[in-house]
Amino acid sequence: MKGNKKVLLKKYVSGYVEESDMEIVTNDTVYLKLPQGSKALLLKNLYLSCDPYMRNLMSKLDEPSYIDNFLPGSVIRGFGVSRVLDSGHSDFKAGDYVWGVTGWEEYTLITDTQSLFKIPIFTADVPLSYYTGLLGMPGFTAYVGFYELCSPKKGEFVFISAASGAVGQLVGQFAKLTGCHVAGSAGSDEKVELLKTKFGFDDAFNYKKEKDLGVALKRCFPEGIDIYFDNVGGAMLDAVLKNMRDNGRVSVSGMISQYNLEKPEGIYNLMNLISKSIMMKGFHVMDYVHLYPKFQEMAIEYIKSGEIIYLEDKAEGIENAPAALVGLFRGLNVGKQLVVVAHE
Amino acid sequence: MKGNKKVLLKKYVSGYVEESDMEIVTNDTVYLKLPQGSKALLLKNLYLSCDPYMRNLMSKLDEPSYIDNFLPGSVIRGFGVSRVLDSGHSDFKAGDYVWGVTGWEEYTLITDTQSLFKIPIFTADVPLSYYTGLLGMPGFTAYVGFYELCSPKKGEFVFISAASGAVGQLVGQFAKLTGCHVAGSAGSDEKVELLKTKFGFDDAFNYKKEKDLGVALKRCFPEGIDIYFDNVGGAMLDAVLKNMRDNGRVSVSGMISQYNLEKPEGIYNLMNLISKSIMMKGFHVMDYVHLYPKFQEMAIEYIKSGEIIYLEDKAEGIENAPAALVGLFRGLNVGKQLVVVAHE
Repeated sequence: MKGNKKVLLKKYVSGYVEESDMEIVTNDTVYLKLPQGSKALLLKNLYLSCDPYMRNLMSKLDEPSYIDNFLPGSVIRGFGVSRVLDSGHSDFKAGDYVWGVTGWEEYTLITDTQSLFKIPIFTADVPLSYYTGLLGMPGFTAYVGFYELCSPKKGEFVFISAASGAVGQLVGQFAKLTGCHVAGSAGSDEKVELLKTKFGFDDAFNYKKEKDLGVALKRCFPEGIDIYFDNVGGAMLDAVLKNMRDNGRVSVSGMISQYNLEKPEGIYNLMNLISKSIMMKGFHVMDYVHLYPKFQEMAIEYIKSGEIIYLEDKAEGIENAPAALVGLFRGLNVGKQLVVVAHE
Repeated sequence: MKGNKKVLLKKYVSGYVEESDMEIVTNDTVYLKLPQGSKALLLKNLYLSCDPYMRNLMSKLDEPSYIDNFLPGSVIRGFGVSRVLDSGHSDFKAGDYVWGVTGWEEYTLITDTQSLFKIPIFTADVPLSYYTGLLGMPGFTAYVGFYELCSPKKGEFVFISAASGAVGQLVGQFAKLTGCHVAGSAGSDEKVELLKTKFGFDDAFNYKKEKDLGVALKRCFPEGIDIYFDNVGGAMLDAVLKNMRDNGRVSVSGMISQYNLEKPEGIYNLMNLISKSIMMKGFHVMDYVHLYPKFQEMAIEYIKSGEIIYLEDKAEGIENAPAALVGLFRGLNVGKQLVVVAHE
């Protein structure tokens, strides 16, 4: 038996999520061995992923969504990297490392292993934490949203919002590897600098410092935008629609600017969909899970060759998880935000 | 030489188009024979098509669009059906019937024949006027927007706005032939009745009589909408987005509710694109012109077998063309609005 520190949702959230909407509980205990005959998995959580979509699960929804939302008093769920302590499931054994949906706690009992993926041994020389980012859901989101939905071609003009984040930094690098002209927006001069120097973007701007997003977009793309990888929605999406080119594609990956608003902002430029034959597509990345092995192989090659780099922002200790998640919506993270629960 | 009655744009339009924005000119004359060596075509226009997209060409645009806009003092351009009076082009000869882009006038000289299609003899038992509608641009728009962009499957739930119009009445019939459950909206009880009795829709409502479009949609689609064929944009589009199902598809064919507004309405429910993996796609139907022969063959079969019917609203005389176009944006037409300039 062991103590099991957890992060609970305290109450349904409205407006911006605050640390006080969550609660750390330390009085819970867990058996580190499964009962005889169990088909479950007992995980020790190592890294937890802070992802924008989680905000939507913290409010009471009018209608059921494709993911069950969190209930007040219950543990936050999210993607993470874990070590198997005990297994009653034939696909996993003690000592395996896995990534997928787990709980925001030190130890998690998994009865439905459908959202759990074994980390193969051949990636042992890649940081395990990458499975919360580059090799996990965000990286795969970048892959599906860019390659599968937008069918990019060499020479095309690609714009990415929240471009230094967990997903954006990869989309930009994928686009450069494809031979595209790439620009991104971010919320600080430091991030803009990173985009230009570390991630190889051709151009970037700090959206908070631009009076007119349309002017900033025109500066980066005088000929317009072929592909927009949208992580933010709202006013940026609206400005981009006006600056798209014929046969443009918008991969609607996220709308982080809208998740904490009581009422979303209006979008006024959808008529451009007709005049420019634009395609917009939202997606659930896990509907494309059959493509994951192909993505993983490609990504690991690029990591090993140094052609792709990945920037993480690590919060140490599960007690700092609420602050890390809150910071994500304030843009405080630089790179992929994750929480280190344990190192092994 | 012959008098050539014409409809000119008098001035750029703002807000709703009025008859007074156009002008009938009768003091123009035309030679009914081409000069020696000309490669042009001389057309006698029989039927002119009133189409919603034309409104956008009547305002001064900030930026160039994919179609040149109309200039004050110049003749209105649009789709029509014409008879070739004289031809210097090897593809056409006097006596041929053609459909495509022509002028709002009795006779038109065509120097660029790229937007003109010969009407084949095998369709002689089909009304020529159908080439402004069912067999012309609107019908082809219904075909491309429904079959090509939405990949409909038997049993799916299909909603169509402006459902009794030139495009909508066909989408509904295509959807029924595919085995879908089909409902539509229209702007009068008479049109709603037509949808249910003449076009075989499973359900229909008068959007002007509904306090809450979302409630009306839920009544028609308690399980949600798989395919939305959007002809209107605005508040209807916004309500539909909330009522879409997972993997829904929105064919953005037109936004007639927005064309006469100084500023478009805001759309607030785009987050549904993510939560429901929705695809939205605008299109220029003429980008799919390679599919036209396949469409034509299918449509003519259906016309001959009586499986598809088509309702036209004919204004008699070119002098009534401005009123016919204005009426389109007021919803005065019942079925495809066209203008009869001459019967042969």
